[in-house]
Amino acid sequence: MKAVVYQGPRSLAVEEVPDAKVQGPLDAVIRITTTNICGSDLHMYEGRTAVEEGKVLGHENMGVVEEVGPGVTRIRVGDRVSVPFNIACGTCRNCTGGWTSFCLRVNPIDGMDGAAYGYANMGPYDGGQAELLRVPYADFNLLELPPGTEHENDFTMLSDIFPTGYHGTELAEVGPGDSVAVFGAGPVGLMAAHSAVLRGASRVFVVDKEADRLALAERYDAIAVDFSRGDPVEQIMEATDGVGVDRGVECVGWQAHDPSGQEHPELVLDNLVKVVRTAGSIGVVGVYVPEDPGVDDPSSAGRIGWDYGTFFTKGQRMGTGQAPVKRYNRQLRDLIITGQAKPGLITSHEVGLDQAVDAYDRFDKREEGWTKVLLKPDS
Amino acid sequence: MKAVVYQGPRSLAVEEVPDAKVQGPLDAVIRITTTNICGSDLHMYEGRTAVEEGKVLGHENMGVVEEVGPGVTRIRVGDRVSVPFNIACGTCRNCTGGWTSFCLRVNPIDGMDGAAYGYANMGPYDGGQAELLRVPYADFNLLELPPGTEHENDFTMLSDIFPTGYHGTELAEVGPGDSVAVFGAGPVGLMAAHSAVLRGASRVFVVDKEADRLALAERYDAIAVDFSRGDPVEQIMEATDGVGVDRGVECVGWQAHDPSGQEHPELVLDNLVKVVRTAGSIGVVGVYVPEDPGVDDPSSAGRIGWDYGTFFTKGQRMGTGQAPVKRYNRQLRDLIITGQAKPGLITSHEVGLDQAVDAYDRFDKREEGWTKVLLKPDS
Amino acid sequence: MKAVVYQGPRSLAVEEVPDAKVQGPLDAVIRITTTNICGSDLHMYEGRTAVEEGKVLGHENMGVVEEVGPGVTRIRVGDRVSVPFNIACGTCRNCTGGWTSFCLRVNPIDGMDGAAYGYANMGPYDGGQAELLRVPYADFNLLELPPGTEHENDFTMLSDIFPTGYHGTELAEVGPGDSVAVFGAGPVGLMAAHSAVLRGASRVFVVDKEADRLALAERYDAIAVDFSRGDPVEQIMEATDGVGVDRGVECVGWQAHDPSGQEHPELVLDNLVKVVRTAGSIGVVGVYVPEDPGVDDPSSAGRIGWDYGTFFTKGQRMGTGQAPVKRYNRQLRDLIITGQAKPGLITSHEVGLDQAVDAYDRFDKREEGWTKVLLKPDS
Amino acid sequence: MKAVVYQGPRSLAVEEVPDAKVQGPLDAVIRITTTNICGSDLHMYEGRTAVEEGKVLGHENMGVVEEVGPGVTRIRVGDRVSVPFNIACGTCRNCTGGWTSFCLRVNPIDGMDGAAYGYANMGPYDGGQAELLRVPYADFNLLELPPGTEHENDFTMLSDIFPTGYHGTELAEVGPGDSVAVFGAGPVGLMAAHSAVLRGASRVFVVDKEADRLALAERYDAIAVDFSRGDPVEQIMEATDGVGVDRGVECVGWQAHDPSGQEHPELVLDNLVKVVRTAGSIGVVGVYVPEDPGVDDPSSAGRIGWDYGTFFTKGQRMGTGQAPVKRYNRQLRDLIITGQAKPGLITSHEVGLDQAVDAYDRFDKREEGWTKVLLKPDS
Repeated sequence: MKAVVYQGPRSLAVEEVPDAKVQGPLDAVIRITTTNICGSDLHMYEGRTAVEEGKVLGHENMGVVEEVGPGVTRIRVGDRVSVPFNIACGTCRNCTGGWTSFCLRVNPIDGMDGAAYGYANMGPYDGGQAELLRVPYADFNLLELPPGTEHENDFTMLSDIFPTGYHGTELAEVGPGDSVAVFGAGPVGLMAAHSAVLRGASRVFVVDKEADRLALAERYDAIAVDFSRGDPVEQIMEATDGVGVDRGVECVGWQAHDPSGQEHPELVLDNLVKVVRTAGSIGVVGVYVPEDPGVDDPSSAGRIGWDYGTFFTKGQRMGTGQAPVKRYNRQLRDLIITGQAKPGLITSHEVGLDQAVDAYDRFDKREEGWTKVLLKPDS
Repeated sequence: MKAVVYQGPRSLAVEEVPDAKVQGPLDAVIRITTTNICGSDLHMYEGRTAVEEGKVLGHENMGVVEEVGPGVTRIRVGDRVSVPFNIACGTCRNCTGGWTSFCLRVNPIDGMDGAAYGYANMGPYDGGQAELLRVPYADFNLLELPPGTEHENDFTMLSDIFPTGYHGTELAEVGPGDSVAVFGAGPVGLMAAHSAVLRGASRVFVVDKEADRLALAERYDAIAVDFSRGDPVEQIMEATDGVGVDRGVECVGWQAHDPSGQEHPELVLDNLVKVVRTAGSIGVVGVYVPEDPGVDDPSSAGRIGWDYGTFFTKGQRMGTGQAPVKRYNRQLRDLIITGQAKPGLITSHEVGLDQAVDAYDRFDKREEGWTKVLLKPDS
Repeated sequence: MKAVVYQGPRSLAVEEVPDAKVQGPLDAVIRITTTNICGSDLHMYEGRTAVEEGKVLGHENMGVVEEVGPGVTRIRVGDRVSVPFNIACGTCRNCTGGWTSFCLRVNPIDGMDGAAYGYANMGPYDGGQAELLRVPYADFNLLELPPGTEHENDFTMLSDIFPTGYHGTELAEVGPGDSVAVFGAGPVGLMAAHSAVLRGASRVFVVDKEADRLALAERYDAIAVDFSRGDPVEQIMEATDGVGVDRGVECVGWQAHDPSGQEHPELVLDNLVKVVRTAGSIGVVGVYVPEDPGVDDPSSAGRIGWDYGTFFTKGQRMGTGQAPVKRYNRQLRDLIITGQAKPGLITSHEVGLDQAVDAYDRFDKREEGWTKVLLKPDS
Repeated sequence: MKAVVYQGPRSLAVEEVPDAKVQGPLDAVIRITTTNICGSDLHMYEGRTAVEEGKVLGHENMGVVEEVGPGVTRIRVGDRVSVPFNIACGTCRNCTGGWTSFCLRVNPIDGMDGAAYGYANMGPYDGGQAELLRVPYADFNLLELPPGTEHENDFTMLSDIFPTGYHGTELAEVGPGDSVAVFGAGPVGLMAAHSAVLRGASRVFVVDKEADRLALAERYDAIAVDFSRGDPVEQIMEATDGVGVDRGVECVGWQAHDPSGQEHPELVLDNLVKVVRTAGSIGVVGVYVPEDPGVDDPSSAGRIGWDYGTFFTKGQRMGTGQAPVKRYNRQLRDLIITGQAKPGLITSHEVGLDQAVDAYDRFDKREEGWTKVLLKPDS
């Protein structure tokens, strides 16, 4: 089968590799219909992770079930399914507690809980930027979709970014009537904004500097805050009569940068502490890492000196980490079916697998308008 | 009346000051029967806050109602009451939402929510280390106690440290069967350990290096971890077969120090991140500050470079801040009455107001056995 | 002042009565701008309660503050305010726990917790279908609104029916993506449907037989189920492929009737048990009563023989009772201000106080199109 | 293997039946070490259910894994395990939502969610009152226990009654400091009382008329209320100064009877409504049924006319149904290991399988001291 293979920093290839296969009684193999490039794929692409050469990338996958193992009884061949990016066993303590993002059994790296397809440090699982994908514990992991091709570009957001954005709003405890500040209008930030509105937030501010992304935020009924035009904290404080917001969502991560492009890993955390009210809460789904091979002192990356004293003084709460997709994807699917949720709106490009290398390159350069790229192995 | 008055760093006096009086229709005046010295009083004593000279100290107060204003209809003269350290209006958004620790109306300092008796930055309210105390919004703030003198040394812990320790376990989401690590066996840490056991925790580790405090932890059915004998993280990991604990509670604050006494504000946060499981949660009630006049660069104090990258990677949650005492004190009172809760166990010294200066000095030096000092204005 | 006075079953008068006055330090007097007739006012009107003659009716009130007592410091003369129908002291255990609907101090009837304006068994408080209204504990009870007259017919729903409908969805635990069945498309049922959509429900069924009300339900993006055209349970089961709904909301009450008009107090409860899934939950805000003077055996009214065995077998949960308005009205106000919530849409009639008697009569007869009547004392 | 087989009302036999076997890739077979007789087994024994002849009874099972299917990778042969009475697939919507008691896939009866071993209407699964037991979806369902034989009589309560009693306190929202009334001091009621204390309840009343059971309640630090000595509602109201309790737990079921032995299915529900405070909550784990073949009009059994009007007027909440054992059993196991939980205390008899028929008979007659019977197939 054809697949997108990692060969080193900023080096990918679309190659023939052995077909994905059912390897155990609980496996399924999926024929991929859509697989997206994720912002976090760029962390690997840029050489800022420990991903090994030869890995097939791609953790945002959907498709049709091609084959199942003998222990798979819920999911059937021919089912159209979304594949959560988290690989989870379904029977360990974290899985049964709803934390599939931290499954205790699927990652062989000592001390690492949780696994994913085609991702650095997340276990020996190939990704789905390919024609076929092997899915372990298929009955537990797969989400059924209505048959056919309707809503394809909406449903493809169910594997990662829509639940991830939603998880940000859950960690931030967003409820009806709340005011919310989302930092970052990349795909995850836009999904967080969309989720906050779906949960009944009264006002949702979205902070970014890219006009096309801010325009998308407004299509989701959010209020655009352009930080290239002035301090976003001041803009939000002014818009809220000095009160600030009830909730904050971090959708940027450790590569946060100022308008000049200089990275400041503490920048967004500091802004959130300022802009969120006393006793308010913050959800962090932008990625922070303990080590960053892309900087001079890799082990310094995780030790971020942000304004913890004010965080405490304001009595704020903060939740973090990768989203347990399965906790949300069924409900979000149902909102897509009824037309209330429209995550596919952010799709900017749909290309065949053969164009994946070029697409990575342009997405990584943040070329204008390259918001979200969908790969279609069939086309 | 006699009162303990702040005169400057490490300088207190017991002086005659004007009697506390009813100043508005919702005020009460309390005749103090017991008022405790709090660990956080030492922050002021040591000159590491901006408290003004002439302030009467004391935010851990209980007593008998002496007089009430004309708008006070629930509380009556003669009632024995506990006074939460938070002063709260009872009608603003934060108060009605249960966050009396961040009342929007009682602190005249711009941008500061929340007030307390006799405390730096917490409004113009004198404390209760005195014979009398004025209590604003008395019907809302005061908790009734059974008449008489029974359980006096237990009930006196209801004004601050027992609810504060309990709040740590609430922020940490401690539930039945959980394993918990409490860092710090000072009065708040001991109360957190006691609270965790009352909430049904299965194993509660308490980390400190003082033998007398660790012995008290064991009286609350906790497991003592002496960090002067080795890395507390390793000790807890070993005791949990490498699994770590479900929940962590921070009861130390920014003055955390290593066995040699050297301060490391990031030390306990780092240890909590290590010792708490993936998807676990952490409650922080040890005090962190945005600025510390006691160090070379006061504004550096709040910017603590701890291991945020691992915190995110483990998907942990963290809640912080001063306890909203009123949310818990009724329930904790009832557990004292039935004999299940015994917070008074940690009392080490009971002295008259006249001995307050000496007591502050010895408590500040952490003299052996000076765990918790109760001042008795009557005696 | 002019006021709507109860004189006996189906007998009201608009009369001159003494002006409402500030009676204690925490009182305010409000000049009413809008006061609605509530479906539960009809219970009194029809003689099915123990309301005393001479009572001024009206518990759905808003207006402008005319005067305040000396202990009122948060609310100011001239503020435009919404008055929650629950009268609450703000300092008892239920009030501070968020249950203002069951305040322990305001109802002098032994064993009755909670009070309201102008209502049977709910304390000696006159209602607001008048020019002026006395509001006890004004700082606690009143909700500030933006000055002016904008959104008047939306804001007037904040005193009762919007929070009451919302409370039904809260008791039913409605969350994003859920399917919901609301029984009853009266004002409260419509508000429950609106609330469910605002909370992110994916599909909301509303059951009634009145075409005008069902049409309003559809304007709130709900799915109309006309029970005069067939068993509503069958209709919903068919629409959900036999699965049923996640949540149910009861907005009818003990006077539930079949298509012929015959009362069956168990009818809606039975239907909810059938239509809600296993482990699902039900919120009941339609009124049920322990005694009904309007039937042969008043004390029989509360003992309703519904299908409790199936309720248990399906492992369902049920929450009931009058809404604690204050828990929700600020958030709902903010959603009105941003235009997401439009409760005023259901207004069918706006009349002066002088027309109140006729309006009661026609509303009680459920004349077509008489959905919600607003009284405007100024006009 | 030997097994306890149902032959008709009040007719059982211990017979040789074919060995339990691994039938699919996810099955395990357990060698039973302890299997208890449950109060709900008596419903079948007495002929008040539709259980079919030939069924092997027994849903309270523990033992050692004898064999596993090829898809079982978490649990290993030789593991000592507790078997939750609910059979659950682990991958359907209810299972992944934590409601294993209502698994959508394991019960072939149309419209019935949830299954159990050896139980009427709960699927074609034989029970564990036998030497061997087949466990479907073994990796999901089985709970590991420490190897050996320690705590055997405590751990055996993890399969049903301890989590069931605990579920009653969870549905009743019992929290630290709460007062609680448990109706029924049978095994489930005693476990509910024990659970309430473990969760930090301040006062737990237990209502029954059997002296031996009330004595056990006192050993769990509960307060015995003997309803043969007077109205239990009056006794509790008096003990709480007329206030009532915060929470109520129903552990009796539809066969509730008065001191004379007359059945009154509404009796306990009425008492709970009276004794629980306004805005309080009630958990119901005593069994109620839609139909009862043991009474004249089986279909009348579920339609219980209790005081619903007062339930609504007091704004109470109620949760019901079979416990999802898996949600609690790990935490309760850990409390047994540390010695805080001692459910085995209620064990009154340990007998071999051969004595099962006699044990059923005497347990059914509620002979004095026959509180809880454990069958030991090995002995």
